[in-house]
Amino acid sequence: MDAAAGLAKVRAVTVSLPHNLRSDALDNRERILDAARAAFAAEGLNVPMREIARRAGVGSATLYRHFPTKQMLATEAFTDQLCACRAIVDEGLADPDPWHGFCLVIEKVCELHARNRGFAAAFRSAFPNAMDVTAGREYALNSVAELARRAMKAGHLRPDFVLDDLILMLMANDGIHATSPATRVAASRRFAALAIQAFQASPAASPLPPAVFTR
Amino acid sequence: MDAAAGLAKVRAVTVSLPHNLRSDALDNRERILDAARAAFAAEGLNVPMREIARRAGVGSATLYRHFPTKQMLATEAFTDQLCACRAIVDEGLADPDPWHGFCLVIEKVCELHARNRGFAAAFRSAFPNAMDVTAGREYALNSVAELARRAMKAGHLRPDFVLDDLILMLMANDGIHATSPATRVAASRRFAALAIQAFQASPAASPLPPAVFTR
Repeated sequence: MDAAAGLAKVRAVTVSLPHNLRSDALDNRERILDAARAAFAAEGLNVPMREIARRAGVGSATLYRHFPTKQMLATEAFTDQLCACRAIVDEGLADPDPWHGFCLVIEKVCELHARNRGFAAAFRSAFPNAMDVTAGREYALNSVAELARRAMKAGHLRPDFVLDDLILMLMANDGIHATSPATRVAASRRFAALAIQAFQASPAASPLPPAVFTR
Repeated sequence: MDAAAGLAKVRAVTVSLPHNLRSDALDNRERILDAARAAFAAEGLNVPMREIARRAGVGSATLYRHFPTKQMLATEAFTDQLCACRAIVDEGLADPDPWHGFCLVIEKVCELHARNRGFAAAFRSAFPNAMDVTAGREYALNSVAELARRAMKAGHLRPDFVLDDLILMLMANDGIHATSPATRVAASRRFAALAIQAFQASPAASPLPPAVFTR
């Protein structure tokens, strides 16, 4: 599927608003999205809808009028992050050195996920039916797969790397807790560097146990 | 601190029971511990005390009579895992090849944590004041530090490894989710092999970003 078309379709579905939406309704919508982003980023996707309504200072009825399901709310809240994720893999693909591009993707995606735990959870298919998250995720994964093929062919990526290893690393990256967001990002940075080391082709590398399909 | 003495002291504190504890009280105690182990292993340490009482089929008053705090309950529930963890690091230390011993510790501790998520959370100092968990944890960390020193001296462990990298890997390992416990263990096994690769000294290894103290 063409990812740009997929994202455009999704935006058309989720961003469509009645033409006469009044400005206080727009304010409410933005307040809800801000509260949702902050809540999902700090606590993941398990924050209840009523709690998001409370933090946004709107009633539950207002919340559900704008976003009938948590999936729709998360989808809209994560649009920016999806775009950021897409920009990262595009930057990686455009790199003339595929191994350098591959490393860049790992570093930047780990950091993006470390900064926003809700997005990491969404990306890891917590909402398998969230169309645009799925489309964005498939685009990212397909792009990284292409990058991995090139880096492997160039002899820099270990030949037994599979795409699920990237998912494994992103899940693991999401397990990193710290006393502050800044510390989490710094810890994630060191983790990404170690992950790159693990993925680098090396004559001394031992065979890996079988890959596990967690997707 | 001598770890054996620390653990003995802890057991003396937490395992001490009135001499005349009646057998039905002992049954309740075991039922509570079984329920707590299962709940903590599957869902981590956030399971409420009243839910553990419910699953054990006892009243909250009975639960609190046996274990006045969740810390005391977790401490007692994790005694076996602490012993297993200690046995693993002792086995690693006894290995004549320190790098082999170091790898063995990573593999086995990752698997132990993957099998028991509650223990992983406790080990990662979720209860900083739980004396025996702290004592067992310090013993394990000190032993691994000694093993790491030897493996580094032998030229197999990268010279910029710090003990916090092990904590980082254990946190990351705990982030691995899967549809079944068996899949989680298999995924964790592949993750441990990649972590070992990341820690192995290599002329091609790039410098790492600064270590982060998450403890």
